[in-house]
Amino acid sequence: MSGGWTRGFLETYLRIPSVSAQGTGIREAVQLLLGTFRGVGCDARVLETAGNPVVLAAKKTPGAKKTLLVYNHYDVQPPEPLSEWLSPPFDPTERDGRLFARGTADNKANLATRIAAVRALGDRLPVNVTFIVEGEEEVGSPSLPAFVRDHAALLAADACLWESGGKDERGAPEITCGVKGILHAEAVARGPARDLHSSAGVAVPSPAWNLVHALAGLRAPDGTVTLPGFYDRVRRPDDADRAALRAIPLDEERRRAAWGISDFLGGLTGEALKEALVFKPTININGLAGGYQGKGSKTVLPKSASVKFDVRLVPDQDPDDILAKLLAWFAPYAIDVIDAHGYPPARTPVDDPVVRAAADAAREVYRREPLVQPLTPTSGPMYLLRRLMPCVSFGAGHFGSNIHAPNESIFLADLDPAEAHVALFLQKLAAL
Amino acid sequence: MSGGWTRGFLETYLRIPSVSAQGTGIREAVQLLLGTFRGVGCDARVLETAGNPVVLAAKKTPGAKKTLLVYNHYDVQPPEPLSEWLSPPFDPTERDGRLFARGTADNKANLATRIAAVRALGDRLPVNVTFIVEGEEEVGSPSLPAFVRDHAALLAADACLWESGGKDERGAPEITCGVKGILHAEAVARGPARDLHSSAGVAVPSPAWNLVHALAGLRAPDGTVTLPGFYDRVRRPDDADRAALRAIPLDEERRRAAWGISDFLGGLTGEALKEALVFKPTININGLAGGYQGKGSKTVLPKSASVKFDVRLVPDQDPDDILAKLLAWFAPYAIDVIDAHGYPPARTPVDDPVVRAAADAAREVYRREPLVQPLTPTSGPMYLLRRLMPCVSFGAGHFGSNIHAPNESIFLADLDPAEAHVALFLQKLAAL
Repeated sequence: MSGGWTRGFLETYLRIPSVSAQGTGIREAVQLLLGTFRGVGCDARVLETAGNPVVLAAKKTPGAKKTLLVYNHYDVQPPEPLSEWLSPPFDPTERDGRLFARGTADNKANLATRIAAVRALGDRLPVNVTFIVEGEEEVGSPSLPAFVRDHAALLAADACLWESGGKDERGAPEITCGVKGILHAEAVARGPARDLHSSAGVAVPSPAWNLVHALAGLRAPDGTVTLPGFYDRVRRPDDADRAALRAIPLDEERRRAAWGISDFLGGLTGEALKEALVFKPTININGLAGGYQGKGSKTVLPKSASVKFDVRLVPDQDPDDILAKLLAWFAPYAIDVIDAHGYPPARTPVDDPVVRAAADAAREVYRREPLVQPLTPTSGPMYLLRRLMPCVSFGAGHFGSNIHAPNESIFLADLDPAEAHVALFLQKLAAL
Repeated sequence: MSGGWTRGFLETYLRIPSVSAQGTGIREAVQLLLGTFRGVGCDARVLETAGNPVVLAAKKTPGAKKTLLVYNHYDVQPPEPLSEWLSPPFDPTERDGRLFARGTADNKANLATRIAAVRALGDRLPVNVTFIVEGEEEVGSPSLPAFVRDHAALLAADACLWESGGKDERGAPEITCGVKGILHAEAVARGPARDLHSSAGVAVPSPAWNLVHALAGLRAPDGTVTLPGFYDRVRRPDDADRAALRAIPLDEERRRAAWGISDFLGGLTGEALKEALVFKPTININGLAGGYQGKGSKTVLPKSASVKFDVRLVPDQDPDDILAKLLAWFAPYAIDVIDAHGYPPARTPVDDPVVRAAADAAREVYRREPLVQPLTPTSGPMYLLRRLMPCVSFGAGHFGSNIHAPNESIFLADLDPAEAHVALFLQKLAAL
């Protein structure tokens, strides 16, 4: 195993604040990856896009019949709120066997273990491997559709190893077969030409109130989405999906404790709760803003108010269709929808041979039954590659990794098994 | 008339940056007032409070049967944003017949003309006059309730001349009979122990959604407040109020242009619009906050969300009663209400003899029909004195005075008529 090499590369990689939403650290991350891929014997290059560049690296194996495409992203979520980090987000810090930094679990450690597996296998690499590492995943991968279209030949493969993964709450390795889709957007309510004294509020239409009313009509208090037509294209779980759902362990008390809540939304429990987590779409409020937010009070009627939100989509919902429905919903409230972007959901069947290869490898490496997840609640541009090949995902994270939150971490002891899992998956893929 | 004296005192008074919110200029203002009151023959003293001191000054007239209490405040709003002032806020500057400085209209010129009237009348003062000048009006008058309670005997009077006033948009003098009350507060929705990845949103109760639903139930899209019991204590306008309403001029097109809106809330127009402005309470959103507000998108389920709001109250609504109803409303949504403070509304009937005396005096001095305003949309601690005596308000400001805003001003030509109005009001009060 490559423990020392992996940790050394990973800490260097984590020190680069490659936050796509804030435009920092992009070139530094690209340069590090380029050098690293070349150092492990890959043919690597940087391909420019309309946005952040893509790093492409390939290692051919003479006589290999199969090719694996490995998808990762070098960008990470913004680290805010900074005050909640126990150590600086871009200064990787070990505490209690964990390595804390923004991007550890999502998804710098996964790339590190995958490169480490290729490096360790050296001339014994059983398949051709192509790495695609993009830099805009955390802002919706706007350049990736054109990139995949324009470089289809370079990306041709028999299977795709997707970016994310880790252990479930019991410590069992997860094998993920798909991702929910997502639509991000911001809704901005327009009002008077400037902020007014709130004494006018009895007679002036308020964008903040309009926003409240428009939002309240989108989702019921129990979480059911009430946007007309929202559920029209939702595919119901089939028998294989139901079996996979039943196999998913869910310690509800532990989950509530982990999330810091006393009850699930709308009183969900049992299989209905599992089904919601895996197969249900929803609309989330990410942020509310508008008017006075300082100390004390200020009698202002703000000229605008806004909400950032995301819509979690399941097969066969389509983000363009949902966006059209949202635009129609918001228009009568004098609310504009801006900055909409996202991806459709994507799935590979739970009984696909590539999924089985990943699960078999996990069973051997971890010596326990893996958890096969039909869909993860998180999203990604998997649909672009799923159109071309089966996709499966696993990695070095864990249930308490705090992805997208302060104090993101992995367990250092998970690095070596994650690398071994990749290596064995390559063997099994070669034998398919 | 006292033009020279008034302007001299006023400019000296305006040079003192007596900003209660920032703790500046308090003692200087108190000393200036003490010397000025003594210089015009008043028995003046400084009374300490838990906050800024109160200046109390009295001039007795042998044989007078009536006493007028004059309420003003020596503190002013903060001058920020400084960059928008055309001349320094505490360097009174004449331009185009106006005197610009923070506090001119609110309410240093009014006190100047009132002292000037007492000075000019000298031994011919027809009533006893007591001045109460506090230093915390712009921060909610926290010490005034105890002061009024503890010094009731010193404040005993037949009527109160309130601090504010001026001319309406047509140039007619306004006689104001009351103020709306206000309740400021912040509602904070509690949720998971920390910000979560929004993929959990399908199963985790969201404070942002809870806030949206709680708020949506408080006010209908047309502006009607739907908080149970909100209107219970609202006194309906009587015939005299209706007559006063009809006399209020309102150029709707001009008002819409001034506010930068295309329609009034809920399609209000005509007398219903006037009634809303004068006699209707409402709930305003001053600010919304929670979750991610930065650039781009962030898939977070925020652990809390909050709203700052103000409730505009009319007679006989009570802020404590409304607060209790709000607490009961918000509680089931896991929402706390914090930082609640404000004042009840207060009014004197439009046909009260004291109001008539003020209107009659205005008619004679300005040679045009005054506008009698039953209630102003702005608020103040009038209720403390209205419990003891009728209150009426008029002064030297104008429609474009920019109270609480940059480039606050009065017209210099308004000082002498304002002083004459005070003097004639004293005569009419003596004759009641």
